[in-house]
Amino acid sequence: MNKKGLAILMRTKMRPLSPASHSKLNQMQASQPEGDKDSFQDASVLPQREFSHVRESMHSAMSTNKTEIVDVSLDDFSEGYFFLSPENRYKILLSLAKEYDLNRTQVCELMKQHLDLQLPSDKAEDSGHEEEGSLSAFYRIERNLRRALKPMYEVLFERLNTHPGGLKFLSDIRADILCLLEDVNVASLRALDSHLKEKLITWLSPANLELHNITWDDPASLLEKVVAYEAVHPISNLIDLKRRLGIGRRCFGYFHPAIPGEPLIFIEVALMKDVAATIQEVLWDYPPISEHEASCAIFYSISSTQPGLSGVNLGKFLIKRVVDVVKKDMPNICVFATLSPIPGYKQWLSSKLVSSEMSGSAFKENLLRPEEEKALMDASGGSDLGSSGIEVMWNLLTSKNHEWTNSPNLVSVLRTPMMRLCARYLMKEKKRGKALDSVANFHLQNGAMIGRLNWMADRSKKGLAQSGGIMVNYIYRLDNIEDSAQAYLNEGHIESSSDLRSYIEDDNGVRAD
Amino acid sequence: MNKKGLAILMRTKMRPLSPASHSKLNQMQASQPEGDKDSFQDASVLPQREFSHVRESMHSAMSTNKTEIVDVSLDDFSEGYFFLSPENRYKILLSLAKEYDLNRTQVCELMKQHLDLQLPSDKAEDSGHEEEGSLSAFYRIERNLRRALKPMYEVLFERLNTHPGGLKFLSDIRADILCLLEDVNVASLRALDSHLKEKLITWLSPANLELHNITWDDPASLLEKVVAYEAVHPISNLIDLKRRLGIGRRCFGYFHPAIPGEPLIFIEVALMKDVAATIQEVLWDYPPISEHEASCAIFYSISSTQPGLSGVNLGKFLIKRVVDVVKKDMPNICVFATLSPIPGYKQWLSSKLVSSEMSGSAFKENLLRPEEEKALMDASGGSDLGSSGIEVMWNLLTSKNHEWTNSPNLVSVLRTPMMRLCARYLMKEKKRGKALDSVANFHLQNGAMIGRLNWMADRSKKGLAQSGGIMVNYIYRLDNIEDSAQAYLNEGHIESSSDLRSYIEDDNGVRAD
Repeated sequence: MNKKGLAILMRTKMRPLSPASHSKLNQMQASQPEGDKDSFQDASVLPQREFSHVRESMHSAMSTNKTEIVDVSLDDFSEGYFFLSPENRYKILLSLAKEYDLNRTQVCELMKQHLDLQLPSDKAEDSGHEEEGSLSAFYRIERNLRRALKPMYEVLFERLNTHPGGLKFLSDIRADILCLLEDVNVASLRALDSHLKEKLITWLSPANLELHNITWDDPASLLEKVVAYEAVHPISNLIDLKRRLGIGRRCFGYFHPAIPGEPLIFIEVALMKDVAATIQEVLWDYPPISEHEASCAIFYSISSTQPGLSGVNLGKFLIKRVVDVVKKDMPNICVFATLSPIPGYKQWLSSKLVSSEMSGSAFKENLLRPEEEKALMDASGGSDLGSSGIEVMWNLLTSKNHEWTNSPNLVSVLRTPMMRLCARYLMKEKKRGKALDSVANFHLQNGAMIGRLNWMADRSKKGLAQSGGIMVNYIYRLDNIEDSAQAYLNEGHIESSSDLRSYIEDDNGVRAD
Repeated sequence: MNKKGLAILMRTKMRPLSPASHSKLNQMQASQPEGDKDSFQDASVLPQREFSHVRESMHSAMSTNKTEIVDVSLDDFSEGYFFLSPENRYKILLSLAKEYDLNRTQVCELMKQHLDLQLPSDKAEDSGHEEEGSLSAFYRIERNLRRALKPMYEVLFERLNTHPGGLKFLSDIRADILCLLEDVNVASLRALDSHLKEKLITWLSPANLELHNITWDDPASLLEKVVAYEAVHPISNLIDLKRRLGIGRRCFGYFHPAIPGEPLIFIEVALMKDVAATIQEVLWDYPPISEHEASCAIFYSISSTQPGLSGVNLGKFLIKRVVDVVKKDMPNICVFATLSPIPGYKQWLSSKLVSSEMSGSAFKENLLRPEEEKALMDASGGSDLGSSGIEVMWNLLTSKNHEWTNSPNLVSVLRTPMMRLCARYLMKEKKRGKALDSVANFHLQNGAMIGRLNWMADRSKKGLAQSGGIMVNYIYRLDNIEDSAQAYLNEGHIESSSDLRSYIEDDNGVRAD
């Protein structure tokens, strides 16, 4: 990095207030499309003119075929859109979803024509020319039906995709749509989202993305993005950032030619002797080991920068590409694993503890083994922490500033039940056949197995709040990634190490009590 | 170019026998799928095994989800396919078109479900929740219908597109399909072609293509392709090639990252003081004028290298990009025009002459004006060239080695009727509302106007055979390219210069006789 770049970076706040699209998002999230319209109308004269202009440019961007007019309209639309109030954005998106949908009357007409045709028989070989004629009719109507089933707004998406800045704008629009869908349940808006998502998946296929090894030599404007978007382990200062890009560490980003200078997603990797058991050793151990001694590549953070690309699953392809690159560059690396948070564990556990306390004994779920119950009661030592193991556990885990982590005794007493229940959460708790934990689901879909639970692996506030400080290693075993992914996707089967299975055997013992 | 490259190029025949895909194509064109099966079966044991293998790999490339197996199957399929006999290729393509089509029963089922739903009323605002529920059902069925209408072979296309070498293979397959469709009329094969073409149009959108200025410094392997594929004015030797890439000349190619080292299409440009009137001055005048004196960019050749991309219309985008690049680099250039062949004129004229001679006087089309008739009869001077102007004209134009071009008198006598009828051919002869001449249709679609007819502009055998040596300048006027293109596409309106219109006025005089 040159001196100027460094100077810029030094002045950069490590967590900037918010990059542009984030602030838009917040604005969007803050909107209440169904609420308080009066306060808005007070200042509505100028916005109304802007609104009409944005709406008109949107219309002409879809409906004309003259490329100069299309180009100007696309510019007007995408620039004007960002100046709209959240309510007007909602109106625009709703108008797009409803008024530029497909022509349902035409679709019905074509379907009737199709159903009037005789389905070709299986003896197609015999019938010859007539058969060909009837097939022709099928193909013709099907082609027309396919076109008629394409909503008009796809034209807007397609034109934006090839327009400078348009792909990024589409991703921003989708972020807005996703925000709206959290508040309102409008079928046409959901259909709009699903179309846009499908298009984005096509346009952001791995073939169109470039993998770039982000280093300290990259422009400050790019590194600033890494700092801003790091979602798992916030980058606290310049030294922290420099270490994550230095010896024994790698950071790879996926870039799209149409969105230069900004990774769509990036992953941070630590090259280590052993599979890391705590995030502290990954982030803070210094100096790192020399790279030729490393045998493990630990993926310790993966962050998407575009809320509008939710569901596009770039992460899966990124991990595969990075595994290939690292394997090729460093043949001594033979273990590929993550050190991952368990973002949903604490919330799940809390609800279990509460419902266990509140439900009658008949429906009581066995959360604690007798010796754990006893240990917890002993440790509470007659204080007002509660009259049952579960109550004590609840009070400890919800204590201010996670005070329990300062007592070696409490840490040791909580360890056994917390680890066992965490294994249960990861391996048994499902939603529609998939692991309930979002990070677990992500890595299992990609074909990883659950390797090892690590106690006191993340002592940060965030880590303690999410999972009581437990982290997990997912292991990517290169020889059966595909098989694992298929078994998980098709049958919900979760591959795990004997370590994990032993917790579950223990846990079954509790459940059978 | 380095010495090695030059040495390779020197050894290269200027028109190699045929690049790989051409020879495949010829092979394909030679195939007679419906004919002579016995001679084939004699040698069928090995081919049959190969055929089954190719067919199996094609099947598994579509039907499995394991990426390793998909990758191996795609390799097996694309490699095996090229070893198949033309007859077996036909069988494979037919099997793809028929057995991997859509599930028509499922489509019908979904259409019935859709037609059973009540179309939402226009009073959507009032009805609220119920309306939302009914719309949901529409969107759900339409999404399923869209999926059901997608033939299974699209999966193969999509997987090939992201597979190394796959895009080129798809273009080769399409070239085979187009060849087959010249011989057989099979609806499912036509549908296969139309799907593949649509996919190729998406994947080869201008946003995915790179413009490269091809120069003498490019690798011999690339220049060899230019020589092999130049379709309009064959490159006769090294000096010819070097001049086309030297001072006062440009050659721009469109490249796709997945098909490196080979332009998909390229255009040759001459920078000149005036709009060129003959191809001789473009190809042979030496030394060229210095570039800063040039005010015209003359597009004198555009060649597509991929028969399988027929109908994808890369040429239109290439011309636009090249105009932009030249305009930016050389602000002194203000005229953009072509010097183009008229490939269909002579054939059209011959059929007119023949039918005019054969039809009774009542239906006789007036081809010649009285003074032209007289001049032709005078010029034939009592020789056995015929008893009418039309007969004389026919005999002259079909004479061996175009002997008429050696007589200044005959050249001068033929000029008036040939030029007038050529204007009629270009401006009035249409097929489905479009100009009958393929090159005219191409440039008019792109928004050019017909500028000037040039007599004796191409004295090569090919030029004389195609158009009696006439060439035409199409003019790209940058301020109304879009308007012209729209007027042509929507109303069939052909823009032309006053020069051209004056021929037509003359011609109307003849027709009114």
